[in-house]
Amino acid sequence: MKLKYGQIGGGRGSFIGAVHRRAAAMDGKTELIAGAFSSTPEKAKASGQDLMIADDRNYGSWEEMLDVERNRPESERIDFVNIVTPNHMHFHPAREFIEAGFNVIMDKPMVHSSRQAKELIEATEETGVVFALTHNYTGYPMVKEARHWVESGKLGTINKVVVEYPQGWLLTRMEDENKQAAWRTDPARAGIAGAMGDIGSHCENLLSYVTGLEIDALCAELTTFAPGRQLDDDATVMLRFTNGARGLLWCSQIAAAEENDVNIRVYGSKGSLEWHQETPNTVLFKDPAGPVQVHKRGNGYLCEAAQRAAQLPPGHPEAFYEAFANIFMNFTDTVRAKKDGREPTALELDFPSVYDGARGVKFIEKVVENSQSDLKWTPFN
Amino acid sequence: MKLKYGQIGGGRGSFIGAVHRRAAAMDGKTELIAGAFSSTPEKAKASGQDLMIADDRNYGSWEEMLDVERNRPESERIDFVNIVTPNHMHFHPAREFIEAGFNVIMDKPMVHSSRQAKELIEATEETGVVFALTHNYTGYPMVKEARHWVESGKLGTINKVVVEYPQGWLLTRMEDENKQAAWRTDPARAGIAGAMGDIGSHCENLLSYVTGLEIDALCAELTTFAPGRQLDDDATVMLRFTNGARGLLWCSQIAAAEENDVNIRVYGSKGSLEWHQETPNTVLFKDPAGPVQVHKRGNGYLCEAAQRAAQLPPGHPEAFYEAFANIFMNFTDTVRAKKDGREPTALELDFPSVYDGARGVKFIEKVVENSQSDLKWTPFN
Amino acid sequence: MKLKYGQIGGGRGSFIGAVHRRAAAMDGKTELIAGAFSSTPEKAKASGQDLMIADDRNYGSWEEMLDVERNRPESERIDFVNIVTPNHMHFHPAREFIEAGFNVIMDKPMVHSSRQAKELIEATEETGVVFALTHNYTGYPMVKEARHWVESGKLGTINKVVVEYPQGWLLTRMEDENKQAAWRTDPARAGIAGAMGDIGSHCENLLSYVTGLEIDALCAELTTFAPGRQLDDDATVMLRFTNGARGLLWCSQIAAAEENDVNIRVYGSKGSLEWHQETPNTVLFKDPAGPVQVHKRGNGYLCEAAQRAAQLPPGHPEAFYEAFANIFMNFTDTVRAKKDGREPTALELDFPSVYDGARGVKFIEKVVENSQSDLKWTPFN
Amino acid sequence: MKLKYGQIGGGRGSFIGAVHRRAAAMDGKTELIAGAFSSTPEKAKASGQDLMIADDRNYGSWEEMLDVERNRPESERIDFVNIVTPNHMHFHPAREFIEAGFNVIMDKPMVHSSRQAKELIEATEETGVVFALTHNYTGYPMVKEARHWVESGKLGTINKVVVEYPQGWLLTRMEDENKQAAWRTDPARAGIAGAMGDIGSHCENLLSYVTGLEIDALCAELTTFAPGRQLDDDATVMLRFTNGARGLLWCSQIAAAEENDVNIRVYGSKGSLEWHQETPNTVLFKDPAGPVQVHKRGNGYLCEAAQRAAQLPPGHPEAFYEAFANIFMNFTDTVRAKKDGREPTALELDFPSVYDGARGVKFIEKVVENSQSDLKWTPFN
Repeated sequence: MKLKYGQIGGGRGSFIGAVHRRAAAMDGKTELIAGAFSSTPEKAKASGQDLMIADDRNYGSWEEMLDVERNRPESERIDFVNIVTPNHMHFHPAREFIEAGFNVIMDKPMVHSSRQAKELIEATEETGVVFALTHNYTGYPMVKEARHWVESGKLGTINKVVVEYPQGWLLTRMEDENKQAAWRTDPARAGIAGAMGDIGSHCENLLSYVTGLEIDALCAELTTFAPGRQLDDDATVMLRFTNGARGLLWCSQIAAAEENDVNIRVYGSKGSLEWHQETPNTVLFKDPAGPVQVHKRGNGYLCEAAQRAAQLPPGHPEAFYEAFANIFMNFTDTVRAKKDGREPTALELDFPSVYDGARGVKFIEKVVENSQSDLKWTPFN
Repeated sequence: MKLKYGQIGGGRGSFIGAVHRRAAAMDGKTELIAGAFSSTPEKAKASGQDLMIADDRNYGSWEEMLDVERNRPESERIDFVNIVTPNHMHFHPAREFIEAGFNVIMDKPMVHSSRQAKELIEATEETGVVFALTHNYTGYPMVKEARHWVESGKLGTINKVVVEYPQGWLLTRMEDENKQAAWRTDPARAGIAGAMGDIGSHCENLLSYVTGLEIDALCAELTTFAPGRQLDDDATVMLRFTNGARGLLWCSQIAAAEENDVNIRVYGSKGSLEWHQETPNTVLFKDPAGPVQVHKRGNGYLCEAAQRAAQLPPGHPEAFYEAFANIFMNFTDTVRAKKDGREPTALELDFPSVYDGARGVKFIEKVVENSQSDLKWTPFN
Repeated sequence: MKLKYGQIGGGRGSFIGAVHRRAAAMDGKTELIAGAFSSTPEKAKASGQDLMIADDRNYGSWEEMLDVERNRPESERIDFVNIVTPNHMHFHPAREFIEAGFNVIMDKPMVHSSRQAKELIEATEETGVVFALTHNYTGYPMVKEARHWVESGKLGTINKVVVEYPQGWLLTRMEDENKQAAWRTDPARAGIAGAMGDIGSHCENLLSYVTGLEIDALCAELTTFAPGRQLDDDATVMLRFTNGARGLLWCSQIAAAEENDVNIRVYGSKGSLEWHQETPNTVLFKDPAGPVQVHKRGNGYLCEAAQRAAQLPPGHPEAFYEAFANIFMNFTDTVRAKKDGREPTALELDFPSVYDGARGVKFIEKVVENSQSDLKWTPFN
Repeated sequence: MKLKYGQIGGGRGSFIGAVHRRAAAMDGKTELIAGAFSSTPEKAKASGQDLMIADDRNYGSWEEMLDVERNRPESERIDFVNIVTPNHMHFHPAREFIEAGFNVIMDKPMVHSSRQAKELIEATEETGVVFALTHNYTGYPMVKEARHWVESGKLGTINKVVVEYPQGWLLTRMEDENKQAAWRTDPARAGIAGAMGDIGSHCENLLSYVTGLEIDALCAELTTFAPGRQLDDDATVMLRFTNGARGLLWCSQIAAAEENDVNIRVYGSKGSLEWHQETPNTVLFKDPAGPVQVHKRGNGYLCEAAQRAAQLPPGHPEAFYEAFANIFMNFTDTVRAKKDGREPTALELDFPSVYDGARGVKFIEKVVENSQSDLKWTPFN
């Protein structure tokens, strides 16, 4: 049986909504059957019609969708909700659907504040629903391989980590003409941070996923280059980790002509690794005593998680959608496990959780706090 | 309305069948509702159950599927058939379904002989069905861009073309243990050529698609390295084109540790281009008088066909599945145009046709013929 | 007439001394005829014999060399002195030879303190000798091209600069066994900084050379990872420039398995650039509105300084020695101009000066100062 | 004692003469003291003055140089002759100087015919002089590493080799304006082949050096694209080796915008290798069962020959001149060994010999012969 789901947001003109739908569809085991695709009822319904949603499940608002769906018999009810609205519309629907017992998969960053994050954690713990946040870069097979190397000790003790996410698309005031840019640069919708919230949060998540390091303190510089913009469009953070390692995280939306090459380098006592999203099918292991190793997706020498996350033979490239689909695959496998009354495996549970989301929100808060301080270091805990 | 389709082949253990299904699913506008998934009825039905196919459309053979589907009322009938069997099972179902008026999208190489190809051409012309062959590399946006450069004269007169497809997976006698290898190295199922039929045909198609050049004569060397193997596992072909250009095409399945880096370089009087499948999101333009240009997928400076074929913003990589999906997208858009009684656009008709397939079959025949000759050149026409 | 020179340092076991000699020899217009190759007279003379130096100019100490050479008739005197000692042996010989009217080309970083730097500036201004510091990365043709782009406005206003120099060779306590490592990690010989002094100073110089930006304030973190090491082996610096731009500079000698890929990225309002030492023959221009441009050494479309700095046709790679030789070439051309009584051209004067060296020393001092402070920003001036 | 040498050719406007001089100078152990730098006496002497050659050794012709130098006392005589003339001026001076007992290092291809090659072999064998041909690509450390892999069995049995040398500089009729192009496209000076003689001969040498395979038969296509040009500017050769392996060699001088990326790929039963001149500091080993290995110049894990050929630490790139210098270094070390009355080591003898040169000439002859034949294969022996 396919899992049935409803989407909140993702209507006409949405970028990320379409990505989620494609990712969900990729393994052929989910079905979009409901939705409240916009905050405006007419737009919501028009979008639902585009998507061939039946009229009785094409809702004018997420509140209506919640009301109707919670009252359906369990066998007809949607199996999960997929929230793809701008950031300011994450918290309320998420909390309500979680409290009503629906599983939720939601876009990042999770919410606007640690207080909201705490509420989502509590709701999730109380109801036991499955909750996932689509920090999609962790869905790449070779990111999973990188994580495996750190976990298994292949790199030794981690000394230094560098994560970057350079983009150039907000170099000029795109917010004056582009809907995606408009909400991302608007504090009311994006939250307290701009580039840091949008892509810096991906960096923090990628760093934490791959290394497992815990931040001890940070020192940050947030800058706004575009005239009149209210949020940061460039950010640099120096990091100290609890194990003594040092880190560096920077992201920018004014790095002219850069596209989406989020990347990570991890330096350990036994070797280092490097991964780039724009060439996602390889991850480098740099050996102090031997040749650089280029590990390639799809091969039998990779770890179980990396192999499970790959569908194609080596050399046939996989990319963004497939990585995104891997987040959905693990989430839906976990939802199915729960439906079937069995414990999900560690491989199935490999998706960003509500706790990862809360840590990401706190990271944004601490970065903003430090950026306004004259003191160099702000403790993380 | 989603287009409904049935698949022939693609059952348990099939690689390419699953690829076709994912590719078809990607735009959310097709639905797999029928199938004859194996040549053994029990296996066929078991596979259909895996795929959640309704019992009454889960057929034991393609002949049964043809009988039943042709007699359904038009509104219930499948909109197209997707043939993903080994090569020797292409011709008969294709001809029969075409003659019965079904649109067909089929894996390559088309058939075993020019005689069979001629029959498919005739059947297609008589019935007017839409027929596509999944030479999937032509679905990559940057391959479309490359073709556009040649067509629009950016490269000037083409002088030289080099196409390569190095693989290493058949270096040893994989056919003794691997189902995919077994049929590809068996003349009864693969046809008169091994590597040349399997991947050399992709090279010929890619070359023809990008350059539009016509082969005048060829000189070929087919070699078999693995002991006891009956078909070539390594092939080199020198080409003369009717415009005086020269070409070089080689493919191998014993190129140790190579994966799937099919690639093309085209040298013209005004510049040259280079594209590699393993880094598919870029195509190089090399300018004799200026810097090398790295054109990247998703950007506004690309041609219409390349932009239409891309779903993600620049920098978020797309790859194999998305290119495969583009073949399906153009095929299904053409099927829809026909259903709607309108003429498909040139952009929609951009998929490998029955004529491309016939030329590919002839290419294989001529290569085999020359490889057995002491004379250097075999005319192509 | 070849220019005659003497070397201070560079004896047996020296790495950088041999590099300077090769670089000086490359254009066939200089001749090593004298030297005080070690601080130990016997070692000095043995080294001089290896290098086929005549006995009467194979000195036991730089003081002896100064005494004898200054008293030779002008026509026999060496044309310049090349100082390649460890850092703590830069200041005294440099000052003395400058004051005696000898031209000097010296390894970096210049001296241990801004006070010493000031003395060298004064001595140079008083005597009018030609003084060069071998920040060799600025000798690469494509670094000169990058500088030209910034100067000529091709990048627009500079917003952000990232410079990195990751090395891994001091990951373990190499200083216990390796002479090069020993002096670089010893405060008495290296000065107040380790990685920052050795390679961070190259980063600062590269950044300043390419962008021309002036540092307004900096925030730094220096770390020592190897147990018992007295100086930093990892460093990160956030930079604010006087024009409002932001910068990031990091270097490390514990970045496991990294070799010498010093690199720079500059982001402007009209485009960005990227250059890496390990692929030095190309520099990228990233255009927000067009393809990435890969500019390649040796081509006619490059600026005059980049063309002058290249000896080979495009595609025949040049590398480290050739870049180093370019520093020597400009220095010796300037020395020749002075001998000939003509004004050197701007192209000839394109080598790191005593002022660049002084700024580099100050940079090291400010980084160390900030790294010991709780306040975030230390003003640069 | 430095080795003294004289150069034949290499005067004003010569490209390769300057390269030889720089390469010879690089280790500081040779000295250019004589020369006949042009076939025109006045030009010869003017060039010699540019190079600061003493008047009594600045000869008007190579015949004069031979006469005078052979009659000097042995202690004053030049240690070797360096011939860098266009191809048609190789044979006579080489034979005469060899017969007079001078060691010779000469540019490639060796001579115009196998008959001439036989004479040089005989002269060399009779006199015992040291003779080297500057197939400089074999001087690259990582080419030596590649050769070591084949020799030591790391690749297993070699099955397939692909060598390419694409250039674009003769796309148009450069010979009308460029001296380098003029002699290379003139049968009277270049010999029976154009691109094949100039760069195809490098390909054959590189292939033979790395693999040690012997050609059994070949099938070739030579083409001339530029109007009115008398020699080939594009060439493809299919190869059969005596061990059953297959090869492919192509070179072109009309491959628009290609520079000098000569490259080789070797496929064996245990793995494959790949090397490119434009990124010469790395060589890839591709392992069917593990990650791709990027071996980098200067590291301790490389073979003795590769380590000996590298002067700089890993990551500091070396390039064309350094590789060229390695040919000179091994040649001059062998000359010195002979002077010192000791047997040169295998490492010192690692430079292209008169036999390699003869094989290269024969290769050109057989390619031209086959290209004019209707039969597919021409036996090599």
